[in-house]
Amino acid sequence: MTDRRVMAVKSGGREGFAEWQACFARLDPTLELVYWEEALQRPDSIDYALVWDPDPGCLARMARLRVIFGSGAGVDGILLDPDLPRHVPLVRMAIPEATQRMGEFCCWAVLSLLKDARRMAIAQAARDWDYFEAPGRADLTTVGIMGLGTMGARSAAMLQGIGFRTIGWSRRRKDLPGVESYAGEAELPAFLARTDILVCLLPATPETRRIIRAETLALLPRGAGYVGVGRGMHHDLGDILAALDSGQLSGAMLDVFETEPLPADHPLWAHPRATITPHVASLPTRLERAGYVARSIAGFERGEALPNLYDPARGY
Amino acid sequence: MTDRRVMAVKSGGREGFAEWQACFARLDPTLELVYWEEALQRPDSIDYALVWDPDPGCLARMARLRVIFGSGAGVDGILLDPDLPRHVPLVRMAIPEATQRMGEFCCWAVLSLLKDARRMAIAQAARDWDYFEAPGRADLTTVGIMGLGTMGARSAAMLQGIGFRTIGWSRRRKDLPGVESYAGEAELPAFLARTDILVCLLPATPETRRIIRAETLALLPRGAGYVGVGRGMHHDLGDILAALDSGQLSGAMLDVFETEPLPADHPLWAHPRATITPHVASLPTRLERAGYVARSIAGFERGEALPNLYDPARGY
Ligand SMILES: NC(=O)c1ccc[n+]([C@@H]2O[C@H](COP(=O)([O-])OP(=O)(O)OC[C@H]3O[C@@H](n4cnc5c(N)ncnc54)[C@H](OP(=O)(O)O)[C@@H]3O)[C@@H](O)[C@H]2O)c1
Ligand SMILES: NC(=O)c1ccc[n+]([C@@H]2O[C@H](COP(=O)([O-])OP(=O)(O)OC[C@H]3O[C@@H](n4cnc5c(N)ncnc54)[C@H](OP(=O)(O)O)[C@@H]3O)[C@@H](O)[C@H]2O)c1
Repeated sequence: MTDRRVMAVKSGGREGFAEWQACFARLDPTLELVYWEEALQRPDSIDYALVWDPDPGCLARMARLRVIFGSGAGVDGILLDPDLPRHVPLVRMAIPEATQRMGEFCCWAVLSLLKDARRMAIAQAARDWDYFEAPGRADLTTVGIMGLGTMGARSAAMLQGIGFRTIGWSRRRKDLPGVESYAGEAELPAFLARTDILVCLLPATPETRRIIRAETLALLPRGAGYVGVGRGMHHDLGDILAALDSGQLSGAMLDVFETEPLPADHPLWAHPRATITPHVASLPTRLERAGYVARSIAGFERGEALPNLYDPARGY
Repeated sequence: MTDRRVMAVKSGGREGFAEWQACFARLDPTLELVYWEEALQRPDSIDYALVWDPDPGCLARMARLRVIFGSGAGVDGILLDPDLPRHVPLVRMAIPEATQRMGEFCCWAVLSLLKDARRMAIAQAARDWDYFEAPGRADLTTVGIMGLGTMGARSAAMLQGIGFRTIGWSRRRKDLPGVESYAGEAELPAFLARTDILVCLLPATPETRRIIRAETLALLPRGAGYVGVGRGMHHDLGDILAALDSGQLSGAMLDVFETEPLPADHPLWAHPRATITPHVASLPTRLERAGYVARSIAGFERGEALPNLYDPARGY
């Protein structure tokens, strides 16, 4: 084990790089950080890579690369590289702080639909005392969570604490306290039929592309709500818009989009039943993420197993 | 016990009366409901009163009145009557459904401050992808709850489920799981100094009037948040506005006002760090409230104690 290890960084540009440096200077001063473009000049010296969207082929040229860390939740930007060195372990950023933040965001989004916060925000903008009886109550409302991974499971537990009924859908059946478990494609219709507010916390895989579209939305009870916090590729915005207009959906909270920023002329921005947030559901701070990487590297160098490895067989 | 009992109603006007009638027709068909003005023509026939703001002197004229029910949370409108018959039990509407709704609203309001939902709403109105790192995290944030009654205690428990640290302030010291208890005026400064987000769930009494004003706001850490869901008399809107402008408060969620509706020209409507909601925090539906009254009357007529009696010694 050499004392001096080098980590190539491509995440957040030059500005982001300076912040990563400041974080690691506090967490692991013996780790040398190199900005991506310089790393490409000296690929043989790179031990670790911390990347969001590496240029295709570049990681493959780093001959002694030991671990690749995704710098955000989801490694879909890394998997786009056709020459990704598959023998190098790829660690997903699944950090407890991010799970905590996602649970908070889901509670906020689900409660916003329950209380019709969008209606209240529109009324405030018009200085209108728009008194109304909020019809819902958490203990009469079933939240259906698609994806019961780290984030889905924690969100379900938090929602239960507020009184919501929770059900979930995943590939394999789960045994989570208070969460009725539906598994596999065959049980998706039954899951949707029972869901008053749908939360999508799936990973981005070929199977989950456009899983929220007209056909699936039609299986929800009329007037259901939708919280889109997984990935933009999960939902069809045109179908969501149509469902909002027809009343099939009573409200949508959308944090993720295929094109980010969402273009300024997109009709969803002004829709009276859509809330748009700029992919902020669960962004851990840079320091929280750097802490996770530093802890993982320390463990790895002590011979411990790496956490949250990407599994090509599962696809996430 | 006669079969036929009569309840005078003054709550929600003529329109409200028709809805109350529809509810009680389902819940207790042998209870005759009389609209307030008719009740005043036949005061001797009235057994029960369900009122929000009875005309002064009128309840005193109902010679055989057995119980007065407040039709909403808080009996302050009833206590304004100088001739209120003090020997008649006065029941506060403290129903589980309202407690549940209040807890939900407090979670939504506190999370809205944590996530800076107001900033996101303003950005959406401008079609602006205003990406920012939300600085807070529930597990690093202390919510201070003033008033640990039914509603405060339940809200604290729900907030804990999301991960918030909770402390509370009340007259007498409390022993609630996970809630550090501060009691009495002497401990108010220490309580405020530890509070990142302040929630007011006190009742309206002479002691709690204007408890949220410049002097108390100054005792909060700089940049604290405020959720005003008790009563409008608890806070000084001018002082809140000044604290928002100076940065002493980073945000306020206000649901209750001394003048409701809040006048359209009030500067808080347009303040970029204030969220105004039209006294909707915890309005149980009419059917939920009617159910509570019907259950209370049934118990009372079986000889059981009335729940949630107003206590003149405590003042609420
Ligand atoms: N908006 C934001 O700010 C933000 C921030 C962070 C994360 N995210 C997104 O949140 C999502 C969840 O993250 P996570 O860490 O909780 O994921 P995770 O731990 O990998 O869990 C994924 C879950 O999805 C299920 N799943 C995967 N493919 C499925 C399929 N085809 N059918 C049914 N279920 C399937 C899995 O089921 P099995 O367990 O049975 O395999 C598992 O329960 C990711 O998409 C991530 O990108 C968004
Ligand atoms: N915005 C809305 O839609 C809405 C809806 C419903 C209710 N509310 C309001 O919510 C508030 C709380 O309702 P609740 O049913 O929870 O009340 P509650 O059960 O009567 O509890 C009142 C609490 O306040 C404390 N308290 C009273 N006077 C105090 C003083 N001078 N100093 C310190 N603590 C004091 C009491 O302390 P002790 O226990 O030690 O006596 C008790 O913990 C009420 O003001 C009600 O009007 C608002």
